[in-house]
Amino acid sequence: MRLHLSTWPEVETYLADRQSIILPIGSTEQHSPCGLIGTDAITAETIAGEVGTRTGTLVGPTIPVGMAHHHMAFPGSMTLRPSTLIALIRDYVVSLSSHGFRSVLFINGHGGNIPSVQSAFYEVYETLRVQQGDAAPALRLALCNWFTLPSVGALAKELYGDHEGWHATPSEVAVTWAAYPDHIKTAPLEPLDPVDPRFYDSRDFRARFPDGRMGSDPSLAKPEHGHRFIDAVSTEIVARHGAFLDGA
Amino acid sequence: MRLHLSTWPEVETYLADRQSIILPIGSTEQHSPCGLIGTDAITAETIAGEVGTRTGTLVGPTIPVGMAHHHMAFPGSMTLRPSTLIALIRDYVVSLSSHGFRSVLFINGHGGNIPSVQSAFYEVYETLRVQQGDAAPALRLALCNWFTLPSVGALAKELYGDHEGWHATPSEVAVTWAAYPDHIKTAPLEPLDPVDPRFYDSRDFRARFPDGRMGSDPSLAKPEHGHRFIDAVSTEIVARHGAFLDGA
Amino acid sequence: MRLHLSTWPEVETYLADRQSIILPIGSTEQHSPCGLIGTDAITAETIAGEVGTRTGTLVGPTIPVGMAHHHMAFPGSMTLRPSTLIALIRDYVVSLSSHGFRSVLFINGHGGNIPSVQSAFYEVYETLRVQQGDAAPALRLALCNWFTLPSVGALAKELYGDHEGWHATPSEVAVTWAAYPDHIKTAPLEPLDPVDPRFYDSRDFRARFPDGRMGSDPSLAKPEHGHRFIDAVSTEIVARHGAFLDGA
Amino acid sequence: MRLHLSTWPEVETYLADRQSIILPIGSTEQHSPCGLIGTDAITAETIAGEVGTRTGTLVGPTIPVGMAHHHMAFPGSMTLRPSTLIALIRDYVVSLSSHGFRSVLFINGHGGNIPSVQSAFYEVYETLRVQQGDAAPALRLALCNWFTLPSVGALAKELYGDHEGWHATPSEVAVTWAAYPDHIKTAPLEPLDPVDPRFYDSRDFRARFPDGRMGSDPSLAKPEHGHRFIDAVSTEIVARHGAFLDGA
Amino acid sequence: MRLHLSTWPEVETYLADRQSIILPIGSTEQHSPCGLIGTDAITAETIAGEVGTRTGTLVGPTIPVGMAHHHMAFPGSMTLRPSTLIALIRDYVVSLSSHGFRSVLFINGHGGNIPSVQSAFYEVYETLRVQQGDAAPALRLALCNWFTLPSVGALAKELYGDHEGWHATPSEVAVTWAAYPDHIKTAPLEPLDPVDPRFYDSRDFRARFPDGRMGSDPSLAKPEHGHRFIDAVSTEIVARHGAFLDGA
Amino acid sequence: MRLHLSTWPEVETYLADRQSIILPIGSTEQHSPCGLIGTDAITAETIAGEVGTRTGTLVGPTIPVGMAHHHMAFPGSMTLRPSTLIALIRDYVVSLSSHGFRSVLFINGHGGNIPSVQSAFYEVYETLRVQQGDAAPALRLALCNWFTLPSVGALAKELYGDHEGWHATPSEVAVTWAAYPDHIKTAPLEPLDPVDPRFYDSRDFRARFPDGRMGSDPSLAKPEHGHRFIDAVSTEIVARHGAFLDGA
Ligand code: NI
Ligand code: NI
Ligand code: NI
Ligand code: NI
Ligand code: NI
Ligand code: NI
Repeated sequence: MRLHLSTWPEVETYLADRQSIILPIGSTEQHSPCGLIGTDAITAETIAGEVGTRTGTLVGPTIPVGMAHHHMAFPGSMTLRPSTLIALIRDYVVSLSSHGFRSVLFINGHGGNIPSVQSAFYEVYETLRVQQGDAAPALRLALCNWFTLPSVGALAKELYGDHEGWHATPSEVAVTWAAYPDHIKTAPLEPLDPVDPRFYDSRDFRARFPDGRMGSDPSLAKPEHGHRFIDAVSTEIVARHGAFLDGA
Repeated sequence: MRLHLSTWPEVETYLADRQSIILPIGSTEQHSPCGLIGTDAITAETIAGEVGTRTGTLVGPTIPVGMAHHHMAFPGSMTLRPSTLIALIRDYVVSLSSHGFRSVLFINGHGGNIPSVQSAFYEVYETLRVQQGDAAPALRLALCNWFTLPSVGALAKELYGDHEGWHATPSEVAVTWAAYPDHIKTAPLEPLDPVDPRFYDSRDFRARFPDGRMGSDPSLAKPEHGHRFIDAVSTEIVARHGAFLDGA
Repeated sequence: MRLHLSTWPEVETYLADRQSIILPIGSTEQHSPCGLIGTDAITAETIAGEVGTRTGTLVGPTIPVGMAHHHMAFPGSMTLRPSTLIALIRDYVVSLSSHGFRSVLFINGHGGNIPSVQSAFYEVYETLRVQQGDAAPALRLALCNWFTLPSVGALAKELYGDHEGWHATPSEVAVTWAAYPDHIKTAPLEPLDPVDPRFYDSRDFRARFPDGRMGSDPSLAKPEHGHRFIDAVSTEIVARHGAFLDGA
Repeated sequence: MRLHLSTWPEVETYLADRQSIILPIGSTEQHSPCGLIGTDAITAETIAGEVGTRTGTLVGPTIPVGMAHHHMAFPGSMTLRPSTLIALIRDYVVSLSSHGFRSVLFINGHGGNIPSVQSAFYEVYETLRVQQGDAAPALRLALCNWFTLPSVGALAKELYGDHEGWHATPSEVAVTWAAYPDHIKTAPLEPLDPVDPRFYDSRDFRARFPDGRMGSDPSLAKPEHGHRFIDAVSTEIVARHGAFLDGA
Repeated sequence: MRLHLSTWPEVETYLADRQSIILPIGSTEQHSPCGLIGTDAITAETIAGEVGTRTGTLVGPTIPVGMAHHHMAFPGSMTLRPSTLIALIRDYVVSLSSHGFRSVLFINGHGGNIPSVQSAFYEVYETLRVQQGDAAPALRLALCNWFTLPSVGALAKELYGDHEGWHATPSEVAVTWAAYPDHIKTAPLEPLDPVDPRFYDSRDFRARFPDGRMGSDPSLAKPEHGHRFIDAVSTEIVARHGAFLDGA
Repeated sequence: MRLHLSTWPEVETYLADRQSIILPIGSTEQHSPCGLIGTDAITAETIAGEVGTRTGTLVGPTIPVGMAHHHMAFPGSMTLRPSTLIALIRDYVVSLSSHGFRSVLFINGHGGNIPSVQSAFYEVYETLRVQQGDAAPALRLALCNWFTLPSVGALAKELYGDHEGWHATPSEVAVTWAAYPDHIKTAPLEPLDPVDPRFYDSRDFRARFPDGRMGSDPSLAKPEHGHRFIDAVSTEIVARHGAFLDGA
């Protein structure tokens, strides 16, 4: 069930029974010469949709632009400042809380979002504590970074060996190609060198990773891999967060 | 051309020739018992996509949640505070400006967004002026509210007479049904009474408009109307903003 | 009754009977070589005073500096960022609400303020909703842009034909000369060319409108016109907003 | 010379010669049962006007509402949060700096504004330092609290002995009655008890000072005293800040 | 009793009896070639500790970095913007208020902090008033600037005559040397010239006070002086604020 | 070398050679009935001091209060909102950058700070990018959470087996007792049960962890363990970050 494709009486009916919701969060940033700029939003939305379907949980709107400062030296990348992303998440959560939602699971497709999302959780909790004290709603906010789950690592290892890397990975690219098979891109890529995945600001990032990849070979991705990743990771997320989504 | 379905080298190529981009902005809010909660985002994204195709302009990510305080008494509605929406738009525009985009057209599906978008434009202009003086980029920011264009009013008059109303209108609902023909909803609606479209806060809104409609009969919407609206309004937007999108 | 010329017991007495207040809002910005920089504040204050007198409504302090980024390329113009103006209006309204004021009518003299004022209304409503829920005061916030009212347009047409224009108009200048007959200015003006009233940032504004006028001929203004505008527009505002000011 | 009664070419001419400006700042707050709510703004504006006239300095718009939290338990008082007042002053100063103003003297009528004004000065200096480094304009920001000047204390002692007090003082009330002789108010006042002028929040203030006076007897004020205060304090301000206003 | 050296049950026990706390606030800024950069934090912490011991009051964590824009032209100086310092103090006070603390005394070692601390007090009071109305806790926030107390002035006069000055004073340096006798520094100093202690921004400060002193001779400081200052000022603070710390 | 115990000429000399600095960051929060409220600040400061000594790196002021919302149900805990902590870190880094510092290593003692510190790094990078473009300083910001390093885990395993836990761990307590041997606390503790270290807001935290421990037995800590932890972790930090601190 997708929030944007529902009516308010349908949501009212849903809330009589369940108080959980999934929010996909992605990014709009370079993913190497052959990965889509929307990769992280597409993967988060796709996986969130699958988890929503399997668990009967409402899925809210995808946050399409996240914290991607480090990719700003590549054309087309967009970023929110962390402070803006925190404000946005706060408003989302507070809006949902008004209607009685109590458990919010963010399914995240982008590592750069993690600190802002976690900061936002505490910004919400502390703001509500100060404003409402014991009357504050008992919110439960959780973050699931799909790309770090063991099932993803295992399948990536099986399919790509050491060529998974840290950004513009074949696993995430495969998910996007499963979702958008008409938008498979190819581009000549330099041979893979071993990389140190640390970096500082956006200029430093581009100096270290000139085409945007971080030790990955996205050309290994295939749409059929994407379906396997979606299935495997959804299974794992349901196992990990199913009780949370049931309000338990 | 959609930003999220492009690669960074494709954007680099685009920018060598064009410096304009379209950003759809919608809302996540009740649209009566038979309109979708995502109506305003769906319509903005659909129309922006059509305008992008006709003019060869890049279309960026849709802002799915806008300023919808007044709908918050209906389950499922979400809102940003105006200050958050202003910060978000500022970050979007500043990100795009970094890459050389100079003309940004927001295609908007929701009246409640208008003050925040316009405020954001001046927040950007003034911030850049103070920070950079004469070195500030010569940005051109424009807002197009598709639902207020004459072509929409004329077609709505033809199709719905006085039953267009001000919110959850058959015209916007028709566009969503053209976009999502599998999600057509029906619900019993009270007879239409004449309404005064003014209101104050969200409680006042619900007291005046108990099912969320403002003098509209969304049950008149048909998917084929939606296609006619998309065509008519895209034609008008191209006529009005085509030169802007060409950088002229 | 003017707030600044009242004592607190007088306000207490007023509040026992009425809970409405008028707040004039203007701008400090160039108004062509012969219009006063304080034009928009002077007109708003003058008209608000007249409406207050006719309706027995308290008139609060005039906001003298508004959102005037686009005039910043002319010496003497001042601007608030939209975010600052929103914060200011929020504090004004929240202060007044503490004492029991429930209906606040902003009488506005400057188009550039409109988005910020409207954004501020929703910032207030949403903040109070989140903080206080159903206990939030039932505020009614309204905006009246005097210069857009039909009575003004009709009289301007009668007096100035096509020479009213969009900024530094003879109508607003006439009101200031009625208010400050000792500060009538004259300056040689270039002949009027037809103008397109759209613009982007402050540099763009000055490039399009080199002396600050937007298709207007302020030299047509006369103090006696000003008195006619004040009378006409006050009559219209009382007709439109009188019930609001009575708390109905 | 008043900014709001000037045109932009007049300001341009002024700036060719002088880069200083005076900004009056007041408050909108109770001043006992017989002092005007606008007292602090009226006194600041009146004295600033006189200093402007004597020194040939431009006088900008009066800030009518300041930081008056402690008076909020009395009807009609308004306050900005300190953070809002800081943002406002920052925008004022940055606007003026754009045109070449370099020396800004705030003439202040309200003790509660002092910390916010001083904080704002450093907010401006530090923001400009971080943004522009050595290219930042060499701004000189100064604050003059007229009511603390020795000439005021001496004259108050002469006229009122120990009945000057700390708030709603006869000296400030006298200045308002000189400025607005048609708005002299009278009210029965309790006998004066010695007071300790310290307080915490607005509830504490009202508990300590039930009618709003802090050890003062405003009924001693006379309009002719007001003229003497205006003359004495203007003389002292010119002596203290004349060189600053001359840009020396 | 120091908060950082206590356990939560010890604080719980303390709160059953007392609801006051002392917070030292300093700065990290140049103090001439022979004063320590941490001078203001060291003095505040030392004196607060002594006052805490004498009165049995809990002493919280020292704020080590304050508002020191004007010292930023000297290496090693750090500053918070006033707006950041206000936010920090607000969070400190609100945190403490949650546990039942009602009286908070800031013992301050740096003049540059005064406006921000005072602004923060009103930011807290006003925020709580708006959010909680009459349910807001009855907080009592007080500021004690140790270096301005008469006992300090008297002892400095006795020990240093006219060489106390306004910054990097021998009195504050003496306190640091009493606290850190292993970190006494010496440096050749230019002869003392009479100074005007006014300044504008950080560039202006350095131009006026090239080695960082403001009319002071810190080389006169001796550790044994420091002990005398600590004793004298603690005695005076207990006399002035003892009842406050007792909750009276 | 400690910044607070240095003079500005000493820092100037240091900067001629090195551009790195270490900033300790802790928290003020409950650490069970026998751990100190200042534990996280004490450990960070102690370890940072040791690393500074071994590498000849300047150590700046300790941030004593961090993001500890989840501990707020225990008396004496203090917290900054994430947004405040981000602002604070931004001001620290920007201040240091002004003097030429380019590499800043935060040595952190508290898990709750991680998202805010990481968010702050990107807030700084993005703000500088937008304001200064290519002229922005090439800052390198790094975070080291000492308690997560392998050497700590190994030694804790050796000394405490499964009784290390996640909060108020014997390892961190041991470090504080090495630093403050006169402040060793004892308290009767309930037997250790296995815990799930996840939690939501501060009420939820206290409900799950009634005395503040998360599966730890802090009574196992001994001061001599603390010295071993300090040595082991400092060795590891030098190995990991030594080149960074050397500017390599
Ligand atoms: Ni990705
Ligand atoms: Ni709509
Ligand atoms: Ni105007
Ligand atoms: Ni006053
Ligand atoms: Ni000092
Ligand atoms: Ni800890």
